[in-house]
Amino acid sequence: MSATMITKSELLQHWLGHRKLTRKTIEKFPEKELFEFSVGGMRPFSSLIKELLSINVPGLKEMVTRETAPFSHDLPLNTKEELLAKWDEDTPKIVEYFNQISEDQLHETIKLFGQYEFSIISHLLYFIDNEIHHRGQGFVYLRALGIEPPFFWDRY
Amino acid sequence: MSATMITKSELLQHWLGHRKLTRKTIEKFPEKELFEFSVGGMRPFSSLIKELLSINVPGLKEMVTRETAPFSHDLPLNTKEELLAKWDEDTPKIVEYFNQISEDQLHETIKLFGQYEFSIISHLLYFIDNEIHHRGQGFVYLRALGIEPPFFWDRY
Repeated sequence: MSATMITKSELLQHWLGHRKLTRKTIEKFPEKELFEFSVGGMRPFSSLIKELLSINVPGLKEMVTRETAPFSHDLPLNTKEELLAKWDEDTPKIVEYFNQISEDQLHETIKLFGQYEFSIISHLLYFIDNEIHHRGQGFVYLRALGIEPPFFWDRY
Repeated sequence: MSATMITKSELLQHWLGHRKLTRKTIEKFPEKELFEFSVGGMRPFSSLIKELLSINVPGLKEMVTRETAPFSHDLPLNTKEELLAKWDEDTPKIVEYFNQISEDQLHETIKLFGQYEFSIISHLLYFIDNEIHHRGQGFVYLRALGIEPPFFWDRY
């Protein structure tokens, strides 16, 4: 047996901390720039957030129910208020589904969204890493807009 | 006891995969832009990489030896070749120090670099998250330069 590095509850708390920082990052954007501004032809920050929203809860739900469905990043969220409301609505769902995944299932392989075949733990780490990755991109957009991003360590 | 989410060897492998992707990201930059280009008044990508280099091995070393020292992000690395050489030189050191940290020590608090007081596991997750965060920013720099970044999932 290899040594435990992180427990389930620690990883969940770590993710929830990141989600608080991501929420603060969304809040920093002016309404218009959230949906229209980007750098280098990339997607605006609202679209990066919709990607996270379209993957996280549907992905966790699929891990628990094993009912597969294709996903769409094109969620009908058209204002900052709607994005934040969906973000907040999803937090308790993440907690609920996450807690239903057992330790035994972590290394089971699942073909998420009928497409991506990896272990459940790999998928979960991908969800968190992908959020950090896109939020870091949002920080650049904010800097390019002359807006100071939140502090990276501010997960409270 | 809470369920094990990630073992020590899994977290190390996860980090090493990220390091491969970060190395590929450095490689994508033209020499001049690596040291001079940025967006929104931010640091160039070479400086973000030097931050990682100045924290990772020195931080791990301090966790193992408990000898504290202040750090400097201003490493004397002035070419892409020097940055990549230092990156490669550090990989086996990361493995070596990481493997010397025992499971019992993970929740010990350590005041890293004489400044940052957190548990060892929090520091380690910070190192990895910080790398993903800054690399995501490098992806934006590349896009702004008209260069396609590596694939986010390419950790091999």
